[in-house]
Amino acid sequence: MTGPARYRLSDLAERFGGEVLGDPGTRVAGIASLRSAGEGDLSFLARGKFRESLRATRAAAVIVSREDRDATALPRIVCEDSYLYYAKVAELFQPRVDVAPGIHPSAVVSPRANVHPGASIGPGCHVADEARIEHGVFLGAGCVIGAGSSIGEGSRLHPRVCVYHGCSIGRRAIIHSGAVIGADGFGMALEGGRWRKIPQLGGVRIGDDVEIGANTTIDRGALDDTVIEEGVKLDNQIQIGHNVHIGAHSALAGCVGIAGSARIGRGCTLGGGAIVLGHLELADGVHVSAATVITRSIRSPREYAGLYPFQRKSEWVRNAALIRRLGKRPRDQRPADSEPGADRE
Amino acid sequence: MTGPARYRLSDLAERFGGEVLGDPGTRVAGIASLRSAGEGDLSFLARGKFRESLRATRAAAVIVSREDRDATALPRIVCEDSYLYYAKVAELFQPRVDVAPGIHPSAVVSPRANVHPGASIGPGCHVADEARIEHGVFLGAGCVIGAGSSIGEGSRLHPRVCVYHGCSIGRRAIIHSGAVIGADGFGMALEGGRWRKIPQLGGVRIGDDVEIGANTTIDRGALDDTVIEEGVKLDNQIQIGHNVHIGAHSALAGCVGIAGSARIGRGCTLGGGAIVLGHLELADGVHVSAATVITRSIRSPREYAGLYPFQRKSEWVRNAALIRRLGKRPRDQRPADSEPGADRE
Amino acid sequence: MTGPARYRLSDLAERFGGEVLGDPGTRVAGIASLRSAGEGDLSFLARGKFRESLRATRAAAVIVSREDRDATALPRIVCEDSYLYYAKVAELFQPRVDVAPGIHPSAVVSPRANVHPGASIGPGCHVADEARIEHGVFLGAGCVIGAGSSIGEGSRLHPRVCVYHGCSIGRRAIIHSGAVIGADGFGMALEGGRWRKIPQLGGVRIGDDVEIGANTTIDRGALDDTVIEEGVKLDNQIQIGHNVHIGAHSALAGCVGIAGSARIGRGCTLGGGAIVLGHLELADGVHVSAATVITRSIRSPREYAGLYPFQRKSEWVRNAALIRRLGKRPRDQRPADSEPGADRE
Repeated sequence: MTGPARYRLSDLAERFGGEVLGDPGTRVAGIASLRSAGEGDLSFLARGKFRESLRATRAAAVIVSREDRDATALPRIVCEDSYLYYAKVAELFQPRVDVAPGIHPSAVVSPRANVHPGASIGPGCHVADEARIEHGVFLGAGCVIGAGSSIGEGSRLHPRVCVYHGCSIGRRAIIHSGAVIGADGFGMALEGGRWRKIPQLGGVRIGDDVEIGANTTIDRGALDDTVIEEGVKLDNQIQIGHNVHIGAHSALAGCVGIAGSARIGRGCTLGGGAIVLGHLELADGVHVSAATVITRSIRSPREYAGLYPFQRKSEWVRNAALIRRLGKRPRDQRPADSEPGADRE
Repeated sequence: MTGPARYRLSDLAERFGGEVLGDPGTRVAGIASLRSAGEGDLSFLARGKFRESLRATRAAAVIVSREDRDATALPRIVCEDSYLYYAKVAELFQPRVDVAPGIHPSAVVSPRANVHPGASIGPGCHVADEARIEHGVFLGAGCVIGAGSSIGEGSRLHPRVCVYHGCSIGRRAIIHSGAVIGADGFGMALEGGRWRKIPQLGGVRIGDDVEIGANTTIDRGALDDTVIEEGVKLDNQIQIGHNVHIGAHSALAGCVGIAGSARIGRGCTLGGGAIVLGHLELADGVHVSAATVITRSIRSPREYAGLYPFQRKSEWVRNAALIRRLGKRPRDQRPADSEPGADRE
Repeated sequence: MTGPARYRLSDLAERFGGEVLGDPGTRVAGIASLRSAGEGDLSFLARGKFRESLRATRAAAVIVSREDRDATALPRIVCEDSYLYYAKVAELFQPRVDVAPGIHPSAVVSPRANVHPGASIGPGCHVADEARIEHGVFLGAGCVIGAGSSIGEGSRLHPRVCVYHGCSIGRRAIIHSGAVIGADGFGMALEGGRWRKIPQLGGVRIGDDVEIGANTTIDRGALDDTVIEEGVKLDNQIQIGHNVHIGAHSALAGCVGIAGSARIGRGCTLGGGAIVLGHLELADGVHVSAATVITRSIRSPREYAGLYPFQRKSEWVRNAALIRRLGKRPRDQRPADSEPGADRE
């Protein structure tokens, strides 16, 4: 998948900084992990990890952080942060995707939509009335852009992304397949034992440089907009409820759920499967571990965790029974509401 | 997004009931939250919440419940349930979507399908043999309706909904983008260390007035049908396994998972991320908190909860270690099966 | 949904083995659950379950495991594993889907793609440059196959599956609607408070006989490929991170999440909603209960569990408060970082 370009270590150091140890004329034509690198590949050592793989690697050269300066005798680039350096170098080896601007003949574009001639609209897309598609936008096959929505300059929507009406997406967004932006929030009121739908009249407003993972869903607001600020990164299968506000440069890992009207600060991180309940506020710089459920607002920028530790099933069965009774005084031992018998799964 | 219509408070009270305090001739042209309401907007106060926003609002008038009758000096409508009242009024301000009936030329509709002339089939839809699309149905761009499936009168499928063969959907359904109805249930039998697929021969049967969120999946039954009764509301990214039965007017929040053959009663609510394991039964009127895993059948209509409380990570590490050992006697302290070292995330 | 074919019990025993008790000439024309079986239907009794339904069934005959040989007086087939036997018989009653090979005129297939004439490409599909579609492949409506990707012989992709560029899928795959294979992994490096995307240069490699559920996502590798070995079965809404490796014949239930670079062994099972954190290794034959979070590598092939037991909400509130303080000495009782008040949900 790598292009034919070849770089000398000295070329890279000139471009991205760092100090070359060993032959600065060493040429690399690709980038690979330590384990799978072959002749002519550049690799990298993440801080303090994978030293064993480093010894066995067949890479031509490696990127190392300062503290690993002497961890290998291979030609190497020594830098502040080997992982960030790798990120930059990898961009050089990314296959170039040349996208011709224009509208594929099978796309259905409303005559009342506003599509920049420098945008590329793929096969089978549907762009509705008053939608605005800026210069350099790429819509993969089968994307749907609702009435009055706008997609900012240079944004790339992979196939089958769906944006409802009245939403705006900033510049340089990357949105992966199956993402749904602007579906109705889950709002309803009970009326005589039946649910009455509350019209969801707000939209979704997404800043610049946001990435949204595959099959992630972001609901429109009930009255105000749901807001995702600039630089936010959302992994796959995340659910963002209506009226949520996510501060700039926060990153949410896969399967996270944010319930309606929650406010996440700037620069927060949420581990995979974490849940934030509705109407809560998280301060800037809060870090939530995977699978943790946030049930109260958080004001201090620290790390928070809360998941049940796994163990052998036989031990868990015993411990879970003890936990159920933790707060019980003897006279509380009334029959349970649930069926007798061991917990199933 | 609001239309040009303007209503006097007295008009609203006439239509929806309630008592007007202040000038009944006050005109409102939109509905907005207390915080973002501007001149000419109507807003509402949810019971006992957001009193501070009420003081600062620039709304022209507000809807309040009886107990908040005197919480403001603004012109207001006093009613039993301000949230329900707001739901009704919001419908007035919903942008009207005029959908012309007919089949878009880019749609692929089997000549053996049965599409009512009063239905609207969007660009790129595919309607297979013997499918039946009733009057007033709207299929957004790229919907797929499988062979023999039926969509009841007045139902609205947003773009890219997929209904497999042999499923039936009632009247007035709202189904959001990316939902998949009728995919195979996860059924298989072990045969010499390999999995043998069990054909999923049942369908999915969905009652009237059901709403289904974006990217939610409802599997077809193995032999009998999976059943969603009338008035059920499903949020985004819910997974419903095969042969599940969900009773009328139950509401499931985002990311809920219901494993195969579970039966949920009528009028139940499940919080976001809750899980119900397979083959269990929940009585009518059971309420399950967010992120709670139901491992036994429940017979009493109460509230149930079970999630690990979050805390500072350093405290969690200590507590989690204690919980692992809760039921251990000293001699049980054998080496663990898992690798040593602190828990990662 | 059953075809017109009728089988005598003796026909089935000849084909699939087992012993017939009662009239071997009993004819069955369909297969159904004990509860819903009618005249002419064959049913089955899963081991030790549903004995009550067996007494009331109107089935013409049943499949039973050896230990249930005398559980009914109905004509029956006695076999080793009634569930597996049922799986085989159900195949006979599966409606046959005849798919004509060829490319639907509304599909957009690159002239540089390689589509076998024995493949069937449905309406609105998009097949990109250098993609390879083998004999007997079926692509449902709206599937997208990226540049250079390959789909092996006899694979069936239901409508709206999306495969990015540079991925390979083996033979006889079954992939359900909305699945996304090959989206970018969630890789980025912090650079002055902003996230810099790490190009995801690897692909996804999927073996033979894999089934992938609706709306499941499998990310491409950062440098190496993400690998799903032969015979793996993935349910709906599963998230597989980049560089994950899943060993042959493992089965993952709905809503499971596997974080980046985790390695799952062969023949493992993960219950619904389970999570495996990044960079961990699970040995062959590990079984993880539903909703359990794996936070360390596991070397022994046993059963593991770890979920918080649910109870009445009032009891949970009390117990959760105790758990928070489990490891606290009195002097630790400093004010919490989070807001006071009861836990919400």
